[in-house]
Amino acid sequence: MLSVAEAEKIILQNVFLPASEEVELTSSLGRVLAEDLVADRDFPPFDRVTMDGIAICHAEWDEGRRQFAIEGIQAAGAPRMTLEDLANCLEVMTGAMLPDGADTVVRYEDLRIENGIAAVLCETVFPRQNIHFQGIDRQAGALIVQKGQKIGPAEIAVAATVGKTKLRVARLPRTAIVSTGDELVDVGQIPLPHQIRSSNVFALRALLECEFKMESQIFHFPDDRGGIARGLEKILREFEIVVLSGAVSEGKFDFVPQVLNALGVEKCFHKVSQRPGKPFWFGRITGRAVIFALPGNPVSAFLCACRYLLPFLRKSMGESLRHPEMAALNEAVSFKPALTYFLPVRLTWSNDGLMRAQPSPGHGSGDLANLSDADGFLELPVERDVFRAGEAFPVHRYRF
Amino acid sequence: MLSVAEAEKIILQNVFLPASEEVELTSSLGRVLAEDLVADRDFPPFDRVTMDGIAICHAEWDEGRRQFAIEGIQAAGAPRMTLEDLANCLEVMTGAMLPDGADTVVRYEDLRIENGIAAVLCETVFPRQNIHFQGIDRQAGALIVQKGQKIGPAEIAVAATVGKTKLRVARLPRTAIVSTGDELVDVGQIPLPHQIRSSNVFALRALLECEFKMESQIFHFPDDRGGIARGLEKILREFEIVVLSGAVSEGKFDFVPQVLNALGVEKCFHKVSQRPGKPFWFGRITGRAVIFALPGNPVSAFLCACRYLLPFLRKSMGESLRHPEMAALNEAVSFKPALTYFLPVRLTWSNDGLMRAQPSPGHGSGDLANLSDADGFLELPVERDVFRAGEAFPVHRYRF
Repeated sequence: MLSVAEAEKIILQNVFLPASEEVELTSSLGRVLAEDLVADRDFPPFDRVTMDGIAICHAEWDEGRRQFAIEGIQAAGAPRMTLEDLANCLEVMTGAMLPDGADTVVRYEDLRIENGIAAVLCETVFPRQNIHFQGIDRQAGALIVQKGQKIGPAEIAVAATVGKTKLRVARLPRTAIVSTGDELVDVGQIPLPHQIRSSNVFALRALLECEFKMESQIFHFPDDRGGIARGLEKILREFEIVVLSGAVSEGKFDFVPQVLNALGVEKCFHKVSQRPGKPFWFGRITGRAVIFALPGNPVSAFLCACRYLLPFLRKSMGESLRHPEMAALNEAVSFKPALTYFLPVRLTWSNDGLMRAQPSPGHGSGDLANLSDADGFLELPVERDVFRAGEAFPVHRYRF
Repeated sequence: MLSVAEAEKIILQNVFLPASEEVELTSSLGRVLAEDLVADRDFPPFDRVTMDGIAICHAEWDEGRRQFAIEGIQAAGAPRMTLEDLANCLEVMTGAMLPDGADTVVRYEDLRIENGIAAVLCETVFPRQNIHFQGIDRQAGALIVQKGQKIGPAEIAVAATVGKTKLRVARLPRTAIVSTGDELVDVGQIPLPHQIRSSNVFALRALLECEFKMESQIFHFPDDRGGIARGLEKILREFEIVVLSGAVSEGKFDFVPQVLNALGVEKCFHKVSQRPGKPFWFGRITGRAVIFALPGNPVSAFLCACRYLLPFLRKSMGESLRHPEMAALNEAVSFKPALTYFLPVRLTWSNDGLMRAQPSPGHGSGDLANLSDADGFLELPVERDVFRAGEAFPVHRYRF
């Protein structure tokens, strides 16, 4: 059986870049940048006053001058003025251009102004103080945000500043989320004793919406080979990513692998040595579609989506990846089976900066309610049976 | 001057709950639950088979029986069957009801089936194995997700399972984001040398969209007292949260505090002993509106929103709060002024689970580009000047 690392490797070998599209700046939050953001001019674009006060020529201060006649006011948003007499000053406002001839700003708190004369009250005035000099943050043409960055509020600010009303972002793949299983009824229905309501498709769609602002389409097929085959044939013509849940295991009605095979989907693997999620099936139609056929148990489907589907999509969209987050076990855990164990954990921070993982194992892959008690899955490696308190392992978070 | 803790306390005393509203399950992601989610029936609702295989009566195994005649198939989604002869078995599928009379499931991998007889090949069969028993996760009526929880993918799954096609969530306050300043031009314009493009309003709106899925409305007023007064009067009639940026300091055109005062807004405080963001002004019209008048420098406005506005909104919406995240300084930092220092930091995880903060101080409160290099602000307390490598402090993240 494939290891988790082998399964991940095969999945990530099958990414196909879905190209890019342009969106409005105001609709770009959460998307992945498909272009670099470059400084269109120096940052800041001029020698910028950072405190309200007066602008002076520091050589005058050095020569002992402590009183400066006010020539006028340099407002923010006004063209640059000139200090006509270097022995004088101009009042300057935060965000204004530093006037020609001045090189130092003294803030109002350190002044007394009477009859058009500003008297400096403080002991020390450093040359060039309270000025944000042109180009010191970034020079015109410099890279500010690299392609592949997910767009957050800071990137929105940068994009606005450099004048991007539209941004080129990775296109979102057309994604279908499909449930199978005769036991499933709609959320709005009252289930019979042997039925349950559909939930996987909603959880999976929410995961993609959360992370990528992706709107995926939901389908359901009962456990009928013909119906599944007809439905999937249509879906494979229209969608690039197909995420199934259920009917991938050993059961009499687990038609999905056979049906996919008959539809020309190439199986890349079936089964991964992990708990939950062992029956996970993955296949492709090269260059056209990839198929994540996840087990139907809710925790299994959810874990497989967090551990494999999200990284696949991140890589597909060219997202630059960060180091994995690591969390330290709060208590010892033992797990005997020769499987990678994805342990649901609740995360906390201790005062020393350690991210701590409190095990919340629940009652197995059917225990959907337990997902709402946890924040992510701690990945405990297959090679070991006993995991000591304080040891850290990668954590796959689904809550932030 | 107020400390950060005092400012926070005053702000949080001014929350007003904006009541709740009902939204479709499929539009509820990211909202804050205003109702408890309760198990409508037992979780799981019946003794649920967790492996494909056969269901037997374990007493027969104990008495030495290793071959079981198959009476039929219990499929998932079918009413409960009965094992007529306890010496026999029923084939059972994952997700199916456990048949009456059976108490143990043996998976296909441990069987050989020939001529309607299942022979058990394994050495050990534990009583009650491979069954997820009714009510073991949660009993009918039990609380699953508490009011105040932000709705993530796991909560979506729970809500679907308990049949909530609609969810009651905290209503989003009507929020206006207002910039002032003659130096600002639209994103689509080419600024003159003394101008810059508007960016704060987009960053602030993105922060609220990111965290709350809130759609706020954007306004801009030039540095004209009459215009600001007329504009704000109208805004204060229509909006509950007003977030201004700029014109709150000592400058000649910093009309905002006077104008707000004239419009009947009660000042709660002006200035906080922090860098960046010292000129922060906060006021209210009791029970009707709160006004965050943030400094205009981009890093100051952004920090104040992260540190004060987001917690205010979280509390307003009744969101249950988690412990603050703590990160350990990667290198020593010294900061002399008697101010709380919010240091921009880049976050990484070390293999032992420590969240590490790499300082990225940038060039001060005007250095907007630096925000895109950092992930959050480390809060370094006012009482100290020197902060050692390895010491941990609260971190306010704006990127996940």
